[in-house]
Amino acid sequence: MKQKLFFITLIVMFALSGISHYAGFGAIIEFIFSAIAILFVAGFLGKATESVAHYAGQRLGGFLNATFGNAAELIIAIFLVREGLFDMVKASLTGAIIGNLLLVLGLSVLLGGLKFKEQRFNIQLAGHNASLMILAVIGLFIPAIFVTSEHFTKQQDEFLSLTVAGILIVAYILWLVFSMITHKDVLAEMEETSADHGEEPAWSKRTSIIFLVVATAMTALVSEWLVGTLHTFTTDFGLSELFVGAFVIAIVGNAAEHSAAVMLAMKNKIGAAVEIAVGSSLQIALFVAPVLIFISAFSGNTMDILFTPIELAAIGVSVFIAKSISRDGTTNWYEGALLLMVYIILGIAFYLV
Amino acid sequence: MKQKLFFITLIVMFALSGISHYAGFGAIIEFIFSAIAILFVAGFLGKATESVAHYAGQRLGGFLNATFGNAAELIIAIFLVREGLFDMVKASLTGAIIGNLLLVLGLSVLLGGLKFKEQRFNIQLAGHNASLMILAVIGLFIPAIFVTSEHFTKQQDEFLSLTVAGILIVAYILWLVFSMITHKDVLAEMEETSADHGEEPAWSKRTSIIFLVVATAMTALVSEWLVGTLHTFTTDFGLSELFVGAFVIAIVGNAAEHSAAVMLAMKNKIGAAVEIAVGSSLQIALFVAPVLIFISAFSGNTMDILFTPIELAAIGVSVFIAKSISRDGTTNWYEGALLLMVYIILGIAFYLV
Amino acid sequence: MKQKLFFITLIVMFALSGISHYAGFGAIIEFIFSAIAILFVAGFLGKATESVAHYAGQRLGGFLNATFGNAAELIIAIFLVREGLFDMVKASLTGAIIGNLLLVLGLSVLLGGLKFKEQRFNIQLAGHNASLMILAVIGLFIPAIFVTSEHFTKQQDEFLSLTVAGILIVAYILWLVFSMITHKDVLAEMEETSADHGEEPAWSKRTSIIFLVVATAMTALVSEWLVGTLHTFTTDFGLSELFVGAFVIAIVGNAAEHSAAVMLAMKNKIGAAVEIAVGSSLQIALFVAPVLIFISAFSGNTMDILFTPIELAAIGVSVFIAKSISRDGTTNWYEGALLLMVYIILGIAFYLV
Repeated sequence: MKQKLFFITLIVMFALSGISHYAGFGAIIEFIFSAIAILFVAGFLGKATESVAHYAGQRLGGFLNATFGNAAELIIAIFLVREGLFDMVKASLTGAIIGNLLLVLGLSVLLGGLKFKEQRFNIQLAGHNASLMILAVIGLFIPAIFVTSEHFTKQQDEFLSLTVAGILIVAYILWLVFSMITHKDVLAEMEETSADHGEEPAWSKRTSIIFLVVATAMTALVSEWLVGTLHTFTTDFGLSELFVGAFVIAIVGNAAEHSAAVMLAMKNKIGAAVEIAVGSSLQIALFVAPVLIFISAFSGNTMDILFTPIELAAIGVSVFIAKSISRDGTTNWYEGALLLMVYIILGIAFYLV
Repeated sequence: MKQKLFFITLIVMFALSGISHYAGFGAIIEFIFSAIAILFVAGFLGKATESVAHYAGQRLGGFLNATFGNAAELIIAIFLVREGLFDMVKASLTGAIIGNLLLVLGLSVLLGGLKFKEQRFNIQLAGHNASLMILAVIGLFIPAIFVTSEHFTKQQDEFLSLTVAGILIVAYILWLVFSMITHKDVLAEMEETSADHGEEPAWSKRTSIIFLVVATAMTALVSEWLVGTLHTFTTDFGLSELFVGAFVIAIVGNAAEHSAAVMLAMKNKIGAAVEIAVGSSLQIALFVAPVLIFISAFSGNTMDILFTPIELAAIGVSVFIAKSISRDGTTNWYEGALLLMVYIILGIAFYLV
Repeated sequence: MKQKLFFITLIVMFALSGISHYAGFGAIIEFIFSAIAILFVAGFLGKATESVAHYAGQRLGGFLNATFGNAAELIIAIFLVREGLFDMVKASLTGAIIGNLLLVLGLSVLLGGLKFKEQRFNIQLAGHNASLMILAVIGLFIPAIFVTSEHFTKQQDEFLSLTVAGILIVAYILWLVFSMITHKDVLAEMEETSADHGEEPAWSKRTSIIFLVVATAMTALVSEWLVGTLHTFTTDFGLSELFVGAFVIAIVGNAAEHSAAVMLAMKNKIGAAVEIAVGSSLQIALFVAPVLIFISAFSGNTMDILFTPIELAAIGVSVFIAKSISRDGTTNWYEGALLLMVYIILGIAFYLV
């Protein structure tokens, strides 16, 4: 029943955004429709990926889930790269990272904490993720510090960006080897698997594959329409690229995961919610961001890995407070409120830029 | 006996600073007398607040203690704001934070550690406070980073300052709700209440209230005299506003708490000493600082929340080392020495500015 | 047998570098020979120090080991100071710190982790070292932040540098008092002494002392030759002083310790390997660096303590990730790989400068 409603809304919103695009309803209406449509196609894509992953067997499935969990964001970003909107790409990556660590984690911890006095999760797993997150932050900070303080040439800058991107991808692949091959059993013991993973998928193997193809195509189309409206939308409302990328794009692209994490937290599975939020940030920083740099390089106009000082500050601050709050393995509503307050402060600051 | 001596010294020093003010003894003598007098009136105000809090019942009393524990500093700062000495206000807030985290905590841990080989306290409570302290640091850093790297206008700057100040106060109020209502029992279990709280107050309810009014009035007067001398004092001795604010004002305004924390540490109640030092820093950052911004805004000349890079560095460094040292829940003399050495390094650097 | 081979190689390499120096074989050949020779004389000096320390009794021996464990680096740096190559001195100190925290620790953890699924060590000891390391980082950061943001004069700069250097040495001496006198027993319980310390030394007391004198003399000579070639080597290969100091000098000067730590990790003594890597970094930051500043001051041309932003970033980043990885007291191959990837990123960035 619920699924039927989802599909109807998905199709209606997809159609509306398609019509507004081809009939030329104007950028604002097109923006609104395609922003809503992307919520649903991204959710559909996520479900289809999970379902295919289920049939692919544990190892390959785990890899699919881990790597294409942020497929919607990747597709949107590819269209932004194609348009040369590099600042907005980086802003949307920043927004995805801080959105996961502050908004998703904050809402999960706050709402979970209002229902349960204290929620617990495995600290060791959080520790592993924290070290990876720090590598990601270092990978993003080092080029910015070197390039700005040493006045690198464009060639040096590109070389450093590509090398760092390469190393981040290697780190990501090694992490998959570590967590799915050499230390699978150690991590499995710790993990508080989210309910979904255990459940039988709703679709047959064949349907899942067809749905995955369809969902990818729909995401690509809506992403293209959405990206096409951004220039007008941004200028009409006097918003900076930074704000639109970091708060608008990042939120619509991530909404499906957001609601999943909050649901889990309210079922007292805060560990699974933390895994989604932190895991998704890691994927963005260690996989999506470097892949985009390589994609831009292959298309002849290399996007560098230099985030702005305020983007770096936002990412650094988010990692730092998320680490501090998750260190002790217990959460309560106040910690969720703290995360959200940091998110609001950053939102206002980005808005003013 | 001891109390009698305290009152005599209090009255004598208060009188001397009053006389030197009205008789025009010159700024240097007036500065010296009123600086000594403020030590005593601040101590008196602290005692009176505690005593009134005792009679007010647990909840309201806890709130009074938590909120007016730094009343002396707030009063001094209000006079600095009235004089438009914004740089000195921020320096004195910085000085109060680093003074608590490095000088008070350092002396307590060092002297306690010279008497007891190892002192222990509850880690979980320290963890809660650390997360709050990080929010405070973020609240102070974000505006500085955004405003300097994005060249905000004065309007944007004021708007951001007021918003962040508002969020910090909300965080503070939510913390009171968390610690005094929803999670009172959880925290109470952890807390190692300082001796004072348990003791019967020396004064009757009526005397306590009268004393609170008198102490507030005395603090306000001496603060005004002290602030009036600062310009001459600073220029005569060739000291920077930064140094006088961060080291002179901050130390005289906090002396009462300093001695209380050290006493507790030497009675092997290091947990209570840590609570005083960290709690007082939190109050400064999450309550006193934002309140001053609102006071300045209401009086028509808004003080922004932009601390200088070296003030931010000093605060960041203090929080970081205090966190690192208190992480494991045990302290020894060497850790106290480390905190004091960081304080000395900062003191010399501020002196040279 | 193995020892005989070591001595033969030592003498041959020493002779070759001497001959290439006095016969004027050209800077490149001299550089290569003396760089290889320094690996062996530094190893010889380390062995001789350990052996003398063994005969000196526990306390004095511990002090000798702790203080002259980095004698080779100190000697090389003294020659760099004499030549006025201050930038290279600081780069080599930076390189020694990050080399220990990332390369040595990374290789130890990676290779140990490939052999053993999980290796464990005492967390409390790591915590003590972390606090000291943070003091060191603060000592190096504060002057840089103050001097750059406040435009200090050369006099102020020198005064601050010397004072901070003095405080770091005091911190180091107090640490020796703490770890060898007041809290010796507490730390001894935690320490996982490396195999070497327990073994009988191979040489008699008299031979050890003679060897120590000979090794010091050889180290001094080869250091002088090596330093003499650096200018030509650097310009011929178009390398920056920063890269040569931080990666070439630091690696050849530290090779002996590197191999010792890796050996221990592969014998599942990861705690001892961590001690060597972190202890050696601490010695560099708290003893070697400040001593060099005083040496330069006595020789009339004071080297300041101002590291460049990228050196500070490299040190800060290394301390941060090493702390994060060693926090939980267990290591695995992936954590080693992370440390090495950070080292590679820094290496590439320094190379591009």
